[in-house]
Amino acid sequence: MEKKGTLIVVSGFSGVGKGTVVKRLVEDYGYSLSISATTRAPREGEVDGREYYFKTREEFMSLIDYNGLIEWAVYVDNYYGTPRAFVERELAAGHNVILEIEVQGAMNIKSQYPDSVLIFLTAPSAEELKNRLIGRGTEDPAVIEKRMKRAVEESEDMEQYEYIVVNDDLDQCVKDVNSVIVAKSCRLEENKEFMNKMKAELKAL
Amino acid sequence: MEKKGTLIVVSGFSGVGKGTVVKRLVEDYGYSLSISATTRAPREGEVDGREYYFKTREEFMSLIDYNGLIEWAVYVDNYYGTPRAFVERELAAGHNVILEIEVQGAMNIKSQYPDSVLIFLTAPSAEELKNRLIGRGTEDPAVIEKRMKRAVEESEDMEQYEYIVVNDDLDQCVKDVNSVIVAKSCRLEENKEFMNKMKAELKAL
Repeated sequence: MEKKGTLIVVSGFSGVGKGTVVKRLVEDYGYSLSISATTRAPREGEVDGREYYFKTREEFMSLIDYNGLIEWAVYVDNYYGTPRAFVERELAAGHNVILEIEVQGAMNIKSQYPDSVLIFLTAPSAEELKNRLIGRGTEDPAVIEKRMKRAVEESEDMEQYEYIVVNDDLDQCVKDVNSVIVAKSCRLEENKEFMNKMKAELKAL
Repeated sequence: MEKKGTLIVVSGFSGVGKGTVVKRLVEDYGYSLSISATTRAPREGEVDGREYYFKTREEFMSLIDYNGLIEWAVYVDNYYGTPRAFVERELAAGHNVILEIEVQGAMNIKSQYPDSVLIFLTAPSAEELKNRLIGRGTEDPAVIEKRMKRAVEESEDMEQYEYIVVNDDLDQCVKDVNSVIVAKSCRLEENKEFMNKMKAELKAL
């Protein structure tokens, strides 16, 4: 069964471990990771083409003009976007492409790629999420307060997603996300071609 | 997240290995196996309550009268049915219940349990299915002919199912069926209660 790959959009609470889950999906299941373009300056240790594609504002505008981004947004005066060429090439090659993105970008992607799968990662409970946001206890209480407010906002986005996956045990979470993708490929509507072939061949045997 | 279990209905081509797949799902993932009741006489080696619940015709009629069967059907003058009590008890306890059944029974179950998941098992190709039906080459050509005709009929049923899972490699097939069930439990609509709790708790923290 030769098939196009699936585009997987992963969002979730800040601090829930999205980056780690995505990394593991790439490592364990060979998903292709979509890397964002941004106009923000590289931080220490960041490598162009690994964390981000670092672009000048002019380059970024040009990408927008030439429809080179699936979606883009502005955060804190910097532009962030998803390059179209990589995603389309990988999907056409039958690879699953995964990208980590905010809710607005996720909605934009769904409207352009109705076959994409939107997954929201959550901690197993509010208490546990708070613990993760508090981190090692070295954070300023004002910072924690701000993070908790953000978590309340993020929780309003959950209903926009198709799947909710709990990141309690990392291994299990990675398996569960992969299960969502496997299940999609088993859906009846994804197998019409296979079924028709099977039926025709059985009659001909 | 305490949840009701999922009712999983497995059908598929004769000779595709349904029984083995179901057995492995019970062993590997702890699914509860629903055992059918039947009026047919036990064959050698069959144990009451393991292969089937063996019933007299009178007992079977009584089960029907008292709504004790989810579905039932007649094959070659014998009655076969799915006892309701076991299925409901196991689902209520949060266990996934699996049963192997024909297409008509599967449709009956879906209408009574809209949350059930209908899975059709197939060989990877018509040729491979034929090879399995030919078996060890000891079969009467007329028997094989009959089986192939049946396979053509069975292929017409595929479209009635929600998921098509290929049994090529047994381990992979068992994993894929389980993925379908895991993915279902991650669907948004299965997590409304969890989300509402999460939202309320985050606001209260």
